[in-house]
Amino acid sequence: MTLTLKDIQEAADRIAPYIHQTPLLRMENLDAFLGCEVHVKLESMQVTNAFKIRGAMNKILKLEDEDLEKGIITTSSGNHGRAVAFAAKRLGIHATVVVPDSGSKYKAVAIEALGAELVRCDVSERFDVAETLARKYDYTYIPPFDDYEVMAGQGTVGLEIAAHHEDFNYIILPTSGGGLLASTSTAIKNTSASTKVYGAEPASLPRYSESLARGELTRIPRQKTIADALVTDQPGERNFPIVKELIDGMLAVSEEYILKGMKLLMMEGKIVAEPSSSVIIGAILEGLLKVSPEDKVCFVISGGNVGLDILENLKDVDY
Amino acid sequence: MTLTLKDIQEAADRIAPYIHQTPLLRMENLDAFLGCEVHVKLESMQVTNAFKIRGAMNKILKLEDEDLEKGIITTSSGNHGRAVAFAAKRLGIHATVVVPDSGSKYKAVAIEALGAELVRCDVSERFDVAETLARKYDYTYIPPFDDYEVMAGQGTVGLEIAAHHEDFNYIILPTSGGGLLASTSTAIKNTSASTKVYGAEPASLPRYSESLARGELTRIPRQKTIADALVTDQPGERNFPIVKELIDGMLAVSEEYILKGMKLLMMEGKIVAEPSSSVIIGAILEGLLKVSPEDKVCFVISGGNVGLDILENLKDVDY
Repeated sequence: MTLTLKDIQEAADRIAPYIHQTPLLRMENLDAFLGCEVHVKLESMQVTNAFKIRGAMNKILKLEDEDLEKGIITTSSGNHGRAVAFAAKRLGIHATVVVPDSGSKYKAVAIEALGAELVRCDVSERFDVAETLARKYDYTYIPPFDDYEVMAGQGTVGLEIAAHHEDFNYIILPTSGGGLLASTSTAIKNTSASTKVYGAEPASLPRYSESLARGELTRIPRQKTIADALVTDQPGERNFPIVKELIDGMLAVSEEYILKGMKLLMMEGKIVAEPSSSVIIGAILEGLLKVSPEDKVCFVISGGNVGLDILENLKDVDY
Repeated sequence: MTLTLKDIQEAADRIAPYIHQTPLLRMENLDAFLGCEVHVKLESMQVTNAFKIRGAMNKILKLEDEDLEKGIITTSSGNHGRAVAFAAKRLGIHATVVVPDSGSKYKAVAIEALGAELVRCDVSERFDVAETLARKYDYTYIPPFDDYEVMAGQGTVGLEIAAHHEDFNYIILPTSGGGLLASTSTAIKNTSASTKVYGAEPASLPRYSESLARGELTRIPRQKTIADALVTDQPGERNFPIVKELIDGMLAVSEEYILKGMKLLMMEGKIVAEPSSSVIIGAILEGLLKVSPEDKVCFVISGGNVGLDILENLKDVDY
């Protein structure tokens, strides 16, 4: 099995009643700062304020009724957990979310507010904890990435971008396990062959940069990053081959420039993006990809879930 | 003389090369909080991050070349000053901006960054100071409001809203001197008779609520408000009769609810609005206008110019 454009198109129909078609805006006020024609796809304005609902909802809607009744479980640093909690609430089923201690407190609160059961553990143990609970209670595990049905849902971001017929020169996406990147690339490369697709990840957790350089799945040492949604330590096994085949490059962004990107979006773009989404703006500010004023660049702002406490970090940041 | 739809249409053509057509977004994530179908017109994403450039640019573009060469001057608590400074820079002419001490520091910095000459004074003296300087240097005064050409430019907000053919039940606008309200009402009431137009102002500075109640221009006592762009102490003489004739009501919003509105926009809408724009969201949260879930409501987010320091005020705010 793999991921096809048709899978993504079918997912789009399946999830349509549950998600928003998010805005794709031309942001002229950012052109001078980023040196290109700036467009933003605002998944920050999606249901649960992140793109994750697209993949989670597609996966969950494909389950049998009896599995839905038993309940679902997932692991997540936040946004996927919130998406699963939201889907469970919408469908009236039970959800358990295993959250790493290192994750965003703001996101954990939002997950609990949706009525899901929250289980905390160390980030390295999260998959084991979820597996144990799933076996014990016969829950269906809803993976945050590395799953074709999750990817098919996430790829609808790419379909919506393609529907604008803007002939983008570049599309840049935040990258952790690689689900959004692999699936959006599939949608884009099958509809607009001339568009280049880049991923951006924290330089402190360069799982894709390393894996692509070595040509094989590589696990990297855990390090902290302000980008709390981009903490996976290796690419997804199913995502990696697609990413390797389709994308045009990977950008590894410093923590300093992630914050610069976030502040630029807030102060000049007047939009709230989480650090994990700001990584794609930071990549350009850091000069990791050379763009020119004529280039039409679409930045996928994957989420906007950030507490006011994080804004403290922006005070002394220049851009 | 008065203000006509034709004036606004001509202004739209005149200023088109200098401004952005700003997004009008459906914001489903806010529906549950505001009890209606929420749409936002994002003048926060306008050039200089506020609607003021529309009026200032129209006024300035109508000046004779010899007056442009002598230079222009204005008074402003911030957004109009920034607009005038931007226009002057674009046209290569000299601008002086008289800024009240009570205004936003963030906005004053932005004005200086555009190369304008900044003159500070007490808020009550600002018009006298500007007049003295204008006479001394033969500058042309660009009024922030109460001017038909400024209004004609600002009314283009209404034209852009009308062009969406959404049949809004309500349009709600922040109000200070009344230029945006008078001019947008003119555009809307001439194109969509069934749409109700409301203004919202700080309850601490209810210059329109008082004037409308008494049926005449009323000067109110100066009080502080977090809404730093809504500090005028009486309606504009030219604006008031238009507002009185056209609008459906005025909402006076408490400081507490202005902040609630701002936090809601930021945390759930993921957009940055200044307190002076958040007043229209606060009005609904405070229950000052009864809306129902079927009502299509367009909120005009007039500006997004706010420093990170103001976000401190949001920490303990619930919505």
